[in-house]
Amino acid sequence: MGAVIIDGKKISDEIKAELKAEIDQLKSKGIVPGLAAVLVGSNPASALYVKMKARACQQVGIFSDVIIKDNNFTHARMIDLVDDLNNRDDIDGILVQSPLPGQIDEPAVTFRIDPGKDVDGFHPVNQGLVLAGRPVFEPATPLGILELLDRSGNNPSGKEVVVLGRGLLVGRPLAVMLSVKSNIANATVTVCHTGTKNIAAHTRRADIIVAAMGKARFLTGDMIKPGAVVVDVGTNQIDDPTHPKGKRVVGDVDFDSVKEVAGAITPVPGGVGPMTIAALLKNTVKACRIRRGIS
Amino acid sequence: MGAVIIDGKKISDEIKAELKAEIDQLKSKGIVPGLAAVLVGSNPASALYVKMKARACQQVGIFSDVIIKDNNFTHARMIDLVDDLNNRDDIDGILVQSPLPGQIDEPAVTFRIDPGKDVDGFHPVNQGLVLAGRPVFEPATPLGILELLDRSGNNPSGKEVVVLGRGLLVGRPLAVMLSVKSNIANATVTVCHTGTKNIAAHTRRADIIVAAMGKARFLTGDMIKPGAVVVDVGTNQIDDPTHPKGKRVVGDVDFDSVKEVAGAITPVPGGVGPMTIAALLKNTVKACRIRRGIS
Repeated sequence: MGAVIIDGKKISDEIKAELKAEIDQLKSKGIVPGLAAVLVGSNPASALYVKMKARACQQVGIFSDVIIKDNNFTHARMIDLVDDLNNRDDIDGILVQSPLPGQIDEPAVTFRIDPGKDVDGFHPVNQGLVLAGRPVFEPATPLGILELLDRSGNNPSGKEVVVLGRGLLVGRPLAVMLSVKSNIANATVTVCHTGTKNIAAHTRRADIIVAAMGKARFLTGDMIKPGAVVVDVGTNQIDDPTHPKGKRVVGDVDFDSVKEVAGAITPVPGGVGPMTIAALLKNTVKACRIRRGIS
Repeated sequence: MGAVIIDGKKISDEIKAELKAEIDQLKSKGIVPGLAAVLVGSNPASALYVKMKARACQQVGIFSDVIIKDNNFTHARMIDLVDDLNNRDDIDGILVQSPLPGQIDEPAVTFRIDPGKDVDGFHPVNQGLVLAGRPVFEPATPLGILELLDRSGNNPSGKEVVVLGRGLLVGRPLAVMLSVKSNIANATVTVCHTGTKNIAAHTRRADIIVAAMGKARFLTGDMIKPGAVVVDVGTNQIDDPTHPKGKRVVGDVDFDSVKEVAGAITPVPGGVGPMTIAALLKNTVKACRIRRGIS
């Protein structure tokens, strides 16, 4: 038996097509949503992410301003840059690619971003509104996962969901977002982590499992219930001499064994990754509408 | 067999004694922590809560300014009042007793409070910092519950915890606070609610249950594992013709049946209630130290 492969690329393309139509309408009113992406230093993964986000902006018609600074960029200049972006009228969304070099106080930078332009949903105000159940900008990866479940016919309402990992970017906000009373949430959520004594006892009773703990191929087929829906958030680089580059990226899920038991599964790449970018675009258009007073 | 009764009154008295010693030291430096409590309208329960908080302030040596406004107090004047309290140097903590009359936009008032004086921990910034695992002021009831578990020898680290209820004030923030990596948390937490299909299946596997859904005597003895620790956050008024007032307050836990199975249980009243007030006092002293730069 084989699980349905949930095609995050295809679903994200659907969202992008919807956004493009929406942005075309905005443009007919003379409005162009704008996203600023700040990259500091020369981390190749960060550079790749920023490039992918800028390309996605172009695809849907969002103006994208990529600002690249060298590794010695100071904290004070970073704050000035954020202030400048906060004040720019052509910029609706600001994202600062993580990680930043050590001399820059990352939480202080996040806190400095205008919450109305915080399309990554990392500002404490936006995180607090998520916890309060009155979200404005939800963090992109959890938001992408909720959309992925909903649009793939795996609505979590009334289901048992186990989230593996309690990280700031995914596990913790996702658990809250899945648990609130809403049409695309309303799940009974358990968060497992390194302090959990018997993780398999939880994953075996779950209808939906989201693996986001950053351990390569941690979740195996014997740990899940037949028919379960498995969402893989992991991106772990492992050595693989059979690959041209000598390494490749795998998720937190052991795809080969899990796909034999699961009812549906997201691949890595091509699952959650594209959905994260689609969610970022969606937040940017939302920020544009709110800031410019367009209902 | 009978459960240990966890005496919230006694534990809160211990915390108050510690705070009094700390405040005496502050006073020797000429510093008096100050808490403003704003009560609008004539809700008797609200009036009672404010009175209890003011009395607790007096017990430990916190200056308490109770500000009472009538039911017609406008939103604009409420905002002016908050601004005034934000600016007052003798006030370290501000609490606005909920609920407010309908003409006042309560979330806007909460948002207006200086986050550095938000000792209730309700401001989105403070809620966001809780979600981010970098809390400054944690909401009082969840903070009181964590202290209660810790000081009664029921540290939740490594334990299975089931939280009943996903409310803004208790369930949702408590689930996050119990789940983070810390000495008094690190639990595996499941949040159950009205959308959960089989609540008893969860409560029966739990080492610790926190009942905070606002249903009188919902949790019964047959729903728990022998030896479980049960924390009752409920305060429900029920009719009782045998009582002089014709009614009395009961928790979300059916105390009589649960105490026969549980290992430990908090009573109502005398359990979580006094801990909430102790947590509020603790936050006020913390706010005083931070704002006045005392390490």
